[in-house]
Formats: sequence, structure tokens, C-alpha cells
Amino acid sequence: MSGKEMHDLVTRLYPLCRSITGDGVRATLDVVGEHIPLTVHEVPTGTPVLDWHVPREWNIRDAYVRDPAGRKVIDFAESNLHVVGYSTPVSATMPLSELRDHLHTLPGLIPYRTSYWAENWGFCLRQETLDGMEDGDYEVVIDSTLADGHLTYAEHVVPGGEEEVLISCHVCHPSLANDNLAGIAVAVWLARRLAEGERRYTYRFLFAPGTIGSITWLARNRDVVERIRHGLVLACAGDAGALTYKRSRRGDAEIDRAVAYVLESSGRPHRTLDFSPYGYDERQYGSPGFNLPVGCLTRSTYASYPEYHTSGDDPAFVLPESLEDTLETCWEVLQVIEANRRYANLSPYGEPQLGRRGLYGALGGRSDTQRAQMAMLWVLNLSDGDNTLLDIARRSGLPFAAVAEAAESLREAKLVAEWTR
Amino acid sequence: MSGKEMHDLVTRLYPLCRSITGDGVRATLDVVGEHIPLTVHEVPTGTPVLDWHVPREWNIRDAYVRDPAGRKVIDFAESNLHVVGYSTPVSATMPLSELRDHLHTLPGLIPYRTSYWAENWGFCLRQETLDGMEDGDYEVVIDSTLADGHLTYAEHVVPGGEEEVLISCHVCHPSLANDNLAGIAVAVWLARRLAEGERRYTYRFLFAPGTIGSITWLARNRDVVERIRHGLVLACAGDAGALTYKRSRRGDAEIDRAVAYVLESSGRPHRTLDFSPYGYDERQYGSPGFNLPVGCLTRSTYASYPEYHTSGDDPAFVLPESLEDTLETCWEVLQVIEANRRYANLSPYGEPQLGRRGLYGALGGRSDTQRAQMAMLWVLNLSDGDNTLLDIARRSGLPFAAVAEAAESLREAKLVAEWTR
Amino acid sequence: MSGKEMHDLVTRLYPLCRSITGDGVRATLDVVGEHIPLTVHEVPTGTPVLDWHVPREWNIRDAYVRDPAGRKVIDFAESNLHVVGYSTPVSATMPLSELRDHLHTLPGLIPYRTSYWAENWGFCLRQETLDGMEDGDYEVVIDSTLADGHLTYAEHVVPGGEEEVLISCHVCHPSLANDNLAGIAVAVWLARRLAEGERRYTYRFLFAPGTIGSITWLARNRDVVERIRHGLVLACAGDAGALTYKRSRRGDAEIDRAVAYVLESSGRPHRTLDFSPYGYDERQYGSPGFNLPVGCLTRSTYASYPEYHTSGDDPAFVLPESLEDTLETCWEVLQVIEANRRYANLSPYGEPQLGRRGLYGALGGRSDTQRAQMAMLWVLNLSDGDNTLLDIARRSGLPFAAVAEAAESLREAKLVAEWTR
Repeated sequence: MSGKEMHDLVTRLYPLCRSITGDGVRATLDVVGEHIPLTVHEVPTGTPVLDWHVPREWNIRDAYVRDPAGRKVIDFAESNLHVVGYSTPVSATMPLSELRDHLHTLPGLIPYRTSYWAENWGFCLRQETLDGMEDGDYEVVIDSTLADGHLTYAEHVVPGGEEEVLISCHVCHPSLANDNLAGIAVAVWLARRLAEGERRYTYRFLFAPGTIGSITWLARNRDVVERIRHGLVLACAGDAGALTYKRSRRGDAEIDRAVAYVLESSGRPHRTLDFSPYGYDERQYGSPGFNLPVGCLTRSTYASYPEYHTSGDDPAFVLPESLEDTLETCWEVLQVIEANRRYANLSPYGEPQLGRRGLYGALGGRSDTQRAQMAMLWVLNLSDGDNTLLDIARRSGLPFAAVAEAAESLREAKLVAEWTR
Repeated sequence: MSGKEMHDLVTRLYPLCRSITGDGVRATLDVVGEHIPLTVHEVPTGTPVLDWHVPREWNIRDAYVRDPAGRKVIDFAESNLHVVGYSTPVSATMPLSELRDHLHTLPGLIPYRTSYWAENWGFCLRQETLDGMEDGDYEVVIDSTLADGHLTYAEHVVPGGEEEVLISCHVCHPSLANDNLAGIAVAVWLARRLAEGERRYTYRFLFAPGTIGSITWLARNRDVVERIRHGLVLACAGDAGALTYKRSRRGDAEIDRAVAYVLESSGRPHRTLDFSPYGYDERQYGSPGFNLPVGCLTRSTYASYPEYHTSGDDPAFVLPESLEDTLETCWEVLQVIEANRRYANLSPYGEPQLGRRGLYGALGGRSDTQRAQMAMLWVLNLSDGDNTLLDIARRSGLPFAAVAEAAESLREAKLVAEWTR
Repeated sequence: MSGKEMHDLVTRLYPLCRSITGDGVRATLDVVGEHIPLTVHEVPTGTPVLDWHVPREWNIRDAYVRDPAGRKVIDFAESNLHVVGYSTPVSATMPLSELRDHLHTLPGLIPYRTSYWAENWGFCLRQETLDGMEDGDYEVVIDSTLADGHLTYAEHVVPGGEEEVLISCHVCHPSLANDNLAGIAVAVWLARRLAEGERRYTYRFLFAPGTIGSITWLARNRDVVERIRHGLVLACAGDAGALTYKRSRRGDAEIDRAVAYVLESSGRPHRTLDFSPYGYDERQYGSPGFNLPVGCLTRSTYASYPEYHTSGDDPAFVLPESLEDTLETCWEVLQVIEANRRYANLSPYGEPQLGRRGLYGALGGRSDTQRAQMAMLWVLNLSDGDNTLLDIARRSGLPFAAVAEAAESLREAKLVAEWTR
């Protein structure tokens, strides 16, 4: 049962302090690399990438706040969420009134905050902790470094044909389980499952920090971008909520139709959303210059649940059965994508005589018609270049698998052939 | 009252043993030929027609099964449905256990079965009859011939312009009344009614066996196919159910819009269905190579009623008033098709002054506007090449007849002229 | 409060006896000219204009009917609606039976009737007045002239760029307040408000008699027609009913989308209607030859209220707050039209780094995202030539003003530039 195994990976990765750069990302990729081989890329600080530059690398060893009595009231060692990501180093004593400007709170939860692009420092804590802090001088320590270094991302490729499918997930969130350790885990198991059989497409798995990571990858892989035919961003892949698919910017790309078909025909509760230029790295893949057919599959969507970007998003918030269901959905979608083709009817004038080819029940006149025969008739009738097998499944109401099987029978009988423009 | 007359024709044709070839078809066409002149075509066995070949001709004189006591328990003379269509000759004695493999039953009804394309023989009977048959040796006789001969179909043409309308119905079902003697009867009376007046189109009525008949006709009439602008397959035309229109493969052909308009505007209960590659000969006309604008008008659809393809589909199942209503609907549809045109407004800048041409009520300022004037304004406004009169009727909510009349007034006043590309 | 001032103008114009030509129109334009400068055009009788000719000019000084006892039972001096517009001169004595053919009545109301294009004369009166008229000889006097002269219309131009917006209202109705003195008043105040600021477009206000006036203007302004990008016909602008927008013939012109957006997003009760070739001068602007993007904004629509074209449409039927609301709606629509543009994202590969340009909140990771930032992301993502700012507002669900402001920030940051084909 891979749900349990995926959850174990989430739990193992949870304590690492990831950010958009730094050793937390490297440690994460090391663990992922134990499951699937990775090619790790290190891109130096300052490298121009599209409209951006690779930032300085951030690393942190320790951080805490001691109250006037010398007690650690905030401690990075307890939760890496306590420190605002990319905090500059601090070693100072200051009154609470001054410290307060650097504190971010939520009732009952430690919020997750970052300050990647503006030099700043801060701590995140439960409102109740702050409420208990009395006036006086506090010792504030952040033992971090922000210095030239590298941005790290990794690729795993399951080889197939020339055309590619991109599966992308971010690796920049510290101790947050659903967002996005769950996505990483599903990607890993999906890659392993894909490797088991034959593939029409090459599958490229990208593990990269959000925004700057996908931007860096896009900047360095213009040639690969040309070969991407379909893609999915995986995120928030393990909570108890129903599946949500956010369409690619194109809105009616094959991946959009394939995911919609799988979600609808499987009877899974689900939602589909139009593209919007916010969320995960579909924002970058779906920028107007690239306009890649990459959708985003999540369970609950970003910012839609109280635990989002807080200490509440811990491994207990992720369910093995949800991970399993997300994985299975991805698998079914890729099966459709693999089998979906556009055929040309080679005998388009009248119906071809299926009977003499052994493709039609011999005894006519019965009211009940076999589904397989109907699938053949539909494939023949709509294989005019306008329709893919998925379109034919939609139009006929027949299962995609039945339509694909019928097409294969017809192809073997030389009644259809793959459409070429 | 033609409903009664059509029903009489159904009743007269009912006993004949039709199949996809043979003397039953010829006898049927002889009777139809008493009502409208027919050109009968005989196509030899083995003639290649599209992906098919014309099959051998089947004829049957007698068939029965005698039980061990010598009683005829199944008798072709009672109902031609008792024999599986295209049964090969048999003269043998066999135990019930062996005979049973050749028996097809339904509770209370004789089913209709055929085996055109695989050599076989069989009998159809009520389940109750079979239940009463005891073990023992049965005498089995089918006095049939399956030999080189001809496939027979007939055409009736009501002449008009160069462009053609195809009305097609199948003539291959033995003692089945609604499917399709009712369609034959409606076609005959429609042809007679069309002959009474002027026609813009030539109307071609095709009486042919299902599937192989239309395939044979299509193969031999490529030139006619080029001239077909609209078409209807008529079937199941006389049962008590509401009218059903199945759109042509194109889905939005003029015939599709005309039938939908007539059904909706008349207030008749009805259903419209999308094209599917199953049913009657619209399958062949709507194969992707031909893609003809031919829809299918029925009352209840094939396989949707318990009597379908059984002895329950007898003349009592067909109602004169249903035949009459189907005929009237066809007539109204053809009236729309005849009158529907696309015009060009010859005075497209501002409204033309209808008043000085006697086309507008002289006294302005009244709240109530005449429908005829509104129809003229609509025709003028939308006669830009994008819209037919039917489109204008749809858009304006005015009756098609009012719009057509307005267009004619405007044409006479030289304010519009027929659109030519 | 301009509502009160607009209502004062309606009240002041109400008694004037307007028609499609004559001194009533001139007197009306004189009053309008006190509020905004007008260029008045006089077009001679007989001038060919599109499919029409400018008619003879009609003027009337007095008209009455005296009963056998010498009492004036119908008197033009009481209401100019009493005389059928364009009545030919009469001075005769006739029995009631003969006079009756020239009388038009409504219960409780004086109807409004005209006979522009057929020489005729008549009186309009309350049914009750007619019921009280006894048999006998009546003195009938209409002191009118129908003679060669001019058709009069006026333009007011608020200058801006090369491209123009047309605001058109008719000035041919005698003592009818909502139809169309209310439209005139709103047009005047809209022109004054537009003059206060900067404008992208030139605004052309047309005050002309219905039908023949717009036809005359169209015939004489082919060059201006080429420059019209958007337009509104204003009519029935002051009654208590909800706003109604009738789309231009194009149906999806920018003006159509702008008005729909303003009506929907403002929460005003409203209706939108498809174009139809009846109503006001949108008929002429929307004739297929011109096909101008000109919609029609009213409150209640023509012929939809009992007071329409009767003495019931008096100044009391027009409400200052309705005039104000119509004016405000027009203003909001024109603000959208002024600001709506199509941009090109100059950094279309990936998201540009807004942060280093000071366009993005510095502290990331918070669940709540600023509307302004979302607006920037939407503008960037959809500025591909396919979408205007209004499209982006629609798609994103953000207020148009926020989207326009974001676009302006991005333009200043040189991240977008106006789209040029």
C-alpha cells in the first residue's frame, strides 16, 4: 500500500528547514534521491533567469528569543516555522516594544512567513505566546547567513518518446506537510509506477523551489519547453479534501480534458477551476510567453484551509488514503494521455463491413448491441481529424478504455490509422 | 383522410416476407408502385459496393418444425418472423437438445432475428411454445434458397430544381409494421403531396434494404450525392409515441434547424437527439466520407419500445393519426426548406423608406406595430449574408411564414435579392 | 444636484410643439444651446439622404374643433398632442360622422399620432371627450403649413482624440417628457461633465429628429461615421423604471460589454436586450451597411408603459433621481470606455519580478493577497493581445478600476505597453 509509504516520506522530510535556496533543499533532494535517481542542478547566485536573478543562498543554524528571565520563549529548534524565511542574522537585545514589529502571530498556530526579496528578519509564533510575553529586554538571536551560493533543483526523467510530460512540485516550504511534502511524495511514487511499463511520452519530474525555481528551470530549458505536450503541478496532495483541478491557461488543453474526464467518469467528488495567475508554478508555466498546457492538481486549494501556511499543516494533516487517491488519479490521467490519439478512418464512405473482419457479432436483429461494436462505430464515424479518442468517449458516453480498445482493433484491421497532418 | 389510407397500405404490405434481398422486396415494391411510379434497380450478387459486396439472394417458400407427434409446433405460414432471416436450407430430424441451439425466444412474443453475413439457420418463437416442447426427435424443414441473384431497390423522383432532397426508408423488414412499413407509407403520401405543386428542389425517394441497400445506392450514385442538399430517413413513423428527430452528423445543417423549428413552433411534443452512428441508414449517409445533411425522423426510436423487432409490431401498433401527424410534420419541414433562402439587402445604409413603396402603414406613432412590418425590418436588418430566413425567424421570434412573406414583398420591391457568393 | 436641473430643462421644453421639421425643433435647439454650444444644420426639403428625401417642413399655428354650439371641444392651445403631426391645413365644417374618421382616442389620455409620409390630417383626444360629442356640424380648423423648407438638427462636440463616441437623441416629439426630453436633458449634462476633464475620445452629441434626422446625419457624415468607435442612443431616460440596455447590432461590441459591466457591477436593477431593428435611431446606426457599435440606453423601453406616446408622458412622469441615475450610468460607462485598452506584456516569459520594481508587497507567505497585486498578475497574464482591461476585469472578477490602475502601474514600470497590431 503506497499511501503508507508516501506518508512515511512526508514524515521523514517534515523536520528539514527548506527555503528557496540552501541546505534544507539539498537534504530534501538527498532523501528523494534514495527513492528515484535525481539529477541535481546548482545555479550560482546572480545568474540572470528570465526577468529575475538567482538570489543569495540562505542558511540557518539556530534562532531564538530569550525573555528578560533568560527563558527561550521562541526557539527555532522546536519548529523551523518560528523564523521568517530568509531572515538576516541578528544578535541583539531589545525591548519588547521594538521586537514586536518583527513578530507575526496567529491564534493557536505558528504562521509561515518569508521575506525573500526584501532584507528583513522576524519570528512567527502563536498569539498566546506573545500574549504571555511581558515588557522588558529580550535577547534576539538569528544565526543565519545570506550569502552568494546556489539555487538547487533536481530533475528525474522517465524516458519515453520525444514528446514530454512535465510533473512539477515545489520543494521550498519548511515544516509544512500537505504544502508540499505531499506533492513530492505523490510525484516520487508516480515516477516509480511509470517506470514499470512502456511509455509513449518522456516524463520529466521537476523538484524545484516555487517561483524562482520554475523560472530558473524555464530559463535554462528552452529546448525542453518546446517538447512539453502536457503537464501537471502537484501540490496540497494529501489532505482530506476533495480533488481540485485548476485548468491550464489554455483552458481546453488535452490535459485539461483528460483530468476532467477522469474526475467526472470516476465519480470522485471534485472541483474544476479556471486558470488564474496565482497559486503554484502553473503561474510561470502559464505565463503568456510560454503558455504551456500545464494544469494544477491539488486536493484542498492553497489558502483555502485554516491549517494552510501554519504549524497546523503537519504530517497528521496528511492522510495516506488521500495520497493514494491523488496518486491513482494522476495515474489514470496519464493513462488517458498515453492512449489518446487522433485517427483517420481509412474507409470513410459508408460503414466498413465489420462482420467479414470478425469485428461484428454475427447474429443481427437483436435489440441489445454490444458496447464494443458501438465503440467501433463511434471511432469510425468520428475519426475525421477533428476528434481524439477522448473526444469520442465524451461524445459517445462510452468509457475511454472501451473507445481506445475499439480504436486499437480497428487499427489492427487497417480500418483506421493515426492521423497525420 | 390519408391516415386511414396509409394504414391500409401498412396492413396490405404486412404479410410479405421481406429481407435484404429476394422476392419479398420485389412484391413490396410492386404494391408501392401502384401508388407512385418507381424505378426498380436490380444489382447482381457480388457487385462491389463501397467496402461491401452485394450478397447472395435469399428466398424462402416454407419452413416448419414438427414435434415427435408430427404436429407443426413452429410454422412459417403463420408468421414469417418464425424463421431467422437468411436461414440456409435445412431438412433434418434432430433431438430437441440439438434444435435448441437454433431457437430464439421472447416471453409472449416472436422475436425478429437475421443472420445475413454468417451462414446459419434458426427459428424464432414465443418462450411459452418452447416451454411446451418435450424431448424427442423433431423434423426441421427450411425450404429456402441462398444463391446468386440480385439486390433490389427502387427510386421515385418528384422533379424540381438541380438540387435534391433525399427521403429514404428501408424495405427489408418482414412482418413488422411500425418498423418500417409506416415509414414507407408516409414516404408514399409525401411524394404524392409534393407532386401537387411547384418545387424548388428535386425530391428523391429511396426504398431500399437497410445498410446494404443504402450502401449500394451510395456506391452507384456518386453524382446524385453531390446534389443532395437535405435529407430525411423515415422510420418507426406510426406508433403512438411523440416525434423524435435525430440530427444529421453535421448537427446544425439546414434540415436540422428546419425540423427543430417545425417541432418547436408547432407545439408538438417531441425530442431531438444528437447524431449517433447507430440506428437506420443515416449511419451510411452520415459516414464521415459522405457526411450528408440527412437526419432521421421517427416517433418512438428503434429498440426503445417492447414491441420493437417482435411480433408485437403489427398493424394494430400503428395508428392512422400518428401516420397523419408524421406526414404533416414532414410536409411542414419541407415547406420551410423550400422557402428558406439567404438574401442580400440592396439598400443596406439606413432603413429604406418602406412607406413610399407601399410597404409601411401610413399612420405612424401607434404603439402597436404590425407583424408584417416587423418582419420586413428584420429581414432587411439581417440580410447580410450571414442569415437565412429561418435564422431570421429564430432571431426575431416571428413565424417563419411571416418572415418568408416579408422577404418576398421586399424582393418584389427590389429591396433584397437572393444572396450569391 | 443635476437631477433637479435636468428636470427643469424637461419642464421648460415640454410645451414646445416639435415635429420632424419646423420651428418647434428650432426653438428646442435654442434652449439647448443656452446650456451647451450647438452647431445647427438646416437641410433643404428634397435633399436626397440615403434612400430618402428630406420632407417638406411642417409648421402649425393653431387648430381646434368647435361643436355645433360653437364651443372648442378640441384645442391645440391646450395640448399640441391634439393635432396629428404633419396634419395638412383644414378649414371646413362637417358632420361628426365625417369628422370621426379623423379622430384618434384613448380612454383618459390624448394619444400621440403622426402622418409624416402620407398627406392627412387628424385630431387626437380622450375617448371621454368624443363620447360627449353629439351629432351635428363641427367647425374644423388646422392652421398649418406643409411647404418646402428645411430639416433641422444640431451637433455639440466635446473634443478629444481622433476616434469618436456618438451620443444621439431625438428631438421630434412634441409634448412628451420621458420620450424624449429626458434623453435630451441627460445628453446635455453628460456633455457638460465630459468637458470638465481630459478625454481620450471626441464626443459627438447629435440632437436630431427620429429616423429622418439620423438618416440625414448619416448621409452627410460618412467621414465621421468612419471614426465612430462607440455610441449610445439615449431615450426614455427619466421614468421610474429600471435601466434597460439594448445591445448594438454587433451584440458584443465594446460598448455592449462596457454597459453590461457597469450595470452588473453596480448592482443596479437592469435589463439587457438583444438588438432588434425597431425602437429608436439605433435602427439606423445598426442598419447592416453601417453596423455601428451603437447601443440604446433607456429606463422603461418604448411602448412598454401605458403613458408611452400619450398625454400621460408629462413632466410629472419624469423623476429627477431617475435622470440623475441615467446620467451617472452613462458617465460610468464612458469612464470604462475611456480607460479600456489592450496591452502587450513586455516580459511575457514567466512572471516579471514585481518586487524589485516596488510593485509587490515585500513580506511573502501570507494567505491574504492584495487586490492590487492580483490585478497586476491578471493584467500581466492576459495582456497577450486577446484581452482588453474590461475582459480582464470580467475574467478576474476584480473591479475594472483596480485593473485599470494596475495596468497603469505596469505601464509606468514598462512591463506592459499599449497593444498595436
